[in-house]
Amino acid sequence: MAAPKAAAEPHRERRWREFHERPLEEKLPLFFRDGALYDCLFSQQFTRESLDRLCTLADRMRSITKEKSGDDFLQSLLSNKRAMLYFSQPSTRTFLSFSSACHILGLRVLEIRDLKTSSVVKGESLDDTIRTFSSYVDLVIMRHHEPGFVERASWGLNGTQRPVPVINAGSGADQHPTQALLDIYTLNRYLQGGLDGKRILMVGDLKRGRTVRSLAYLLKNYTGIHLSFAAPDAFRMQPDILDFLNRHDIPYEETDDLLAAVEKADAVYMTRIQDEHDKSSGDSKKIDTSLFHFTQKHLDRLPENGIILHPLPRRDEISPEIDDDRRAVYWRQERNGMWIRAALIATIFGLEAKILAKK
Amino acid sequence: MAAPKAAAEPHRERRWREFHERPLEEKLPLFFRDGALYDCLFSQQFTRESLDRLCTLADRMRSITKEKSGDDFLQSLLSNKRAMLYFSQPSTRTFLSFSSACHILGLRVLEIRDLKTSSVVKGESLDDTIRTFSSYVDLVIMRHHEPGFVERASWGLNGTQRPVPVINAGSGADQHPTQALLDIYTLNRYLQGGLDGKRILMVGDLKRGRTVRSLAYLLKNYTGIHLSFAAPDAFRMQPDILDFLNRHDIPYEETDDLLAAVEKADAVYMTRIQDEHDKSSGDSKKIDTSLFHFTQKHLDRLPENGIILHPLPRRDEISPEIDDDRRAVYWRQERNGMWIRAALIATIFGLEAKILAKK
Amino acid sequence: MAAPKAAAEPHRERRWREFHERPLEEKLPLFFRDGALYDCLFSQQFTRESLDRLCTLADRMRSITKEKSGDDFLQSLLSNKRAMLYFSQPSTRTFLSFSSACHILGLRVLEIRDLKTSSVVKGESLDDTIRTFSSYVDLVIMRHHEPGFVERASWGLNGTQRPVPVINAGSGADQHPTQALLDIYTLNRYLQGGLDGKRILMVGDLKRGRTVRSLAYLLKNYTGIHLSFAAPDAFRMQPDILDFLNRHDIPYEETDDLLAAVEKADAVYMTRIQDEHDKSSGDSKKIDTSLFHFTQKHLDRLPENGIILHPLPRRDEISPEIDDDRRAVYWRQERNGMWIRAALIATIFGLEAKILAKK
Repeated sequence: MAAPKAAAEPHRERRWREFHERPLEEKLPLFFRDGALYDCLFSQQFTRESLDRLCTLADRMRSITKEKSGDDFLQSLLSNKRAMLYFSQPSTRTFLSFSSACHILGLRVLEIRDLKTSSVVKGESLDDTIRTFSSYVDLVIMRHHEPGFVERASWGLNGTQRPVPVINAGSGADQHPTQALLDIYTLNRYLQGGLDGKRILMVGDLKRGRTVRSLAYLLKNYTGIHLSFAAPDAFRMQPDILDFLNRHDIPYEETDDLLAAVEKADAVYMTRIQDEHDKSSGDSKKIDTSLFHFTQKHLDRLPENGIILHPLPRRDEISPEIDDDRRAVYWRQERNGMWIRAALIATIFGLEAKILAKK
Repeated sequence: MAAPKAAAEPHRERRWREFHERPLEEKLPLFFRDGALYDCLFSQQFTRESLDRLCTLADRMRSITKEKSGDDFLQSLLSNKRAMLYFSQPSTRTFLSFSSACHILGLRVLEIRDLKTSSVVKGESLDDTIRTFSSYVDLVIMRHHEPGFVERASWGLNGTQRPVPVINAGSGADQHPTQALLDIYTLNRYLQGGLDGKRILMVGDLKRGRTVRSLAYLLKNYTGIHLSFAAPDAFRMQPDILDFLNRHDIPYEETDDLLAAVEKADAVYMTRIQDEHDKSSGDSKKIDTSLFHFTQKHLDRLPENGIILHPLPRRDEISPEIDDDRRAVYWRQERNGMWIRAALIATIFGLEAKILAKK
Repeated sequence: MAAPKAAAEPHRERRWREFHERPLEEKLPLFFRDGALYDCLFSQQFTRESLDRLCTLADRMRSITKEKSGDDFLQSLLSNKRAMLYFSQPSTRTFLSFSSACHILGLRVLEIRDLKTSSVVKGESLDDTIRTFSSYVDLVIMRHHEPGFVERASWGLNGTQRPVPVINAGSGADQHPTQALLDIYTLNRYLQGGLDGKRILMVGDLKRGRTVRSLAYLLKNYTGIHLSFAAPDAFRMQPDILDFLNRHDIPYEETDDLLAAVEKADAVYMTRIQDEHDKSSGDSKKIDTSLFHFTQKHLDRLPENGIILHPLPRRDEISPEIDDDRRAVYWRQERNGMWIRAALIATIFGLEAKILAKK
């Protein structure tokens, strides 16, 4: 991360760099309190147990809200708390789903989306700006275009006398952990018998799509997973993820034959070509991606219990006609994001037991 | 409406066009559920009975909120619901009054006003963007610059497994039904004995002002109405409305003599020249509209029980000095918008009986 | 203030100017109701008694919210009210602290921050725009770049049949009364025995910093105050304030020796160089301000019970290392702003007695 412009002296920058460059497993403890999740920054913070608990909690919150009195109960839990949604990048669904998740638990939301309206113009350091949030709110949910920025915010706040939890809502190209959580939740919810032992086919831009990359990390927590990758040559899954899969003994294969792969898949995870990353060169435009579109032909071959996911937004890779098929779960996946985020916030505020105990 | 840029295949576009081009009376049933209002898109959805019920409900909600316990009751009704305010056009009062109406009923409001901060930039189809809202919210309130867009949003959502109601908060130059509702509510509230049998004088830009046009449609639900139109030649009421009045046997006259017309009017409905519609040519600037301003001289001639309305914002057509006269009801008209919109939302959510029964 | 573009006729403008140009003490009564504060526009509206009561109320609200049931009590008080936050200038902390203060008392917040999305584009007068707010909300909190604008808004609303209170959240370069209130609250809270009899050292840009200027006005309400000013020659405290201090027998001295002054200070009030006011000339850049930075060397000389304040945002004038010292109260000062603003709103709505009586 670039150094903030002002109030940035060597000493503080050096401390940050020393922290930032430590191996992830050494840094993680800073983001927990007494073994419980405090800041949610990395997919790697989650274990099988914590994932299972989170999914269970999300299911429980859904069922509680079948009645208005259940809504009232959940909304009473954090009605005295405020969350800052600090989004430096365009976003519809991550923003709306976090905002809705806050509503479910009664949190009031303060927003900063247009950085021009904030005091950054007066030359304040980013560390100070973030610390200011903690004067007024009880939770910071942050999307930032600079990789590492959300981690720095969390590191900075943890060094003050009034830290508040930070949730990473998308940080540069590297991490988007709550997207991975909602994918896991969706797979678990709609795959018969859950995720263990299932075959997952990932399709599209596997090189730059941070959702498939994050999901691959989380899948190590499940047993008997088999992965297939179908991507244009230019967008194949990268060596770092393949190494990770090898180290964790997760079998995978790469294929050009989407039809055949669909036939064997329990879940098909579609993605769009991320051409916003190469606007200048326009490289993506020259590549024929139509072989990696999911059409009626593929739907016909998908097993009866198979499901289709997509992180959305989509372009041409899935035709809207597919939406009407019972196996197309991507719109439900989108809504699941609201519930798993509500469960995450409840967990961070130590409310899991109280919610599970609710009659 | 122009076709969305992506994910728009001929089949879906064709289905939309086929629907859109059907006569209004054939389309209306889609926007009701079991005879009850679901989507509010067109003035033509309202009957005398539904208008009367809406006005009664708005009055009842006002009186309930004379006490804090009444506010609490109303706010409890939809405190578990969320509304999306999606406004692609500048608006102060429509936006604020809907937002306030939501507050009265306890709904939380999510906003999209600056389209740059949403995912449209990633090439998502508008159909998908709207469907995304329905994943998170329970009501969509939408102002859009493209005529037909709000209807398309509603049509699209009605075809999904999770439709939510849509309220048209102003769609292109064609429809602004909740403005017409607040005008009806205001006329009924401040005209002695209600609207039936009254003489209404409409003044100003009758050609392009969508409020006077929408109001004319709704007036067919009342008996004994007489209309007068006073407008510069270039901005006279258009033949489509005059035809409509003829078909419904509503007598009208056109006049150049504002003073004489005011003397006979029960209600004077003032409007501003809509010159934002001809910025390039600047035609409006060349026309002398001062003959159609309401001044002290007109106030002196207005009957004792006469009232003056204006949809606001105004420019020079009514001097602020007029505001202090008891018969100038336009500021109360503005506030009435909040109440009638609250009543509309309550109706859509099936709360009418519950509110009327409240002690 | 410049005349609004439209609907602005000589008569109304003249009435406003006649009011605006009256001496402050003649204008003040308009902003009270039965002796109680209604509009909060000027630091000069506060007396020793009202300042003490406000600080007591803020303390009480803090202690009430130590328990969730206390939060619930406070939030119930104004849960049926709405506040408009109308900010025409960038602001982070004033905006967030007012928004949070509203949440503490249960008020819903409507925001106008991006003037492009409001109806001003249609040529509405500013008087009408402000009056529109009062149709929907119960309180207007306003920051505006034009000096006098907030006063005009308040004057205009007070002349209507539905006035609502107005709070000045920063008006041009002249007044920022709630900043002065939070400074007084902070000084009283962390100085042993309160403000009376204390020595206060103000450092930095004393010419243009509206916070030090406003604070100087309020200090006349305390006894035995002694002031020191340490500023670059170009940014010395201005004659109008020095005259004011002379008239109120408040002793002061100007000094170049920051170290010696710190040694004798009970409170050091640091400020940043306000170079946003001279962007074009860049004069501030040429002046060496480093002599007026607070460093470890100064911290070593600060008395044991001394405290350091800063209105924030800061740049280089205080190094972040100082933050860890117990005597650096500026981050708590920032948070105090939320509490004193909550107390101010409660006072305006006549809730002081009810809150103080809360068990």
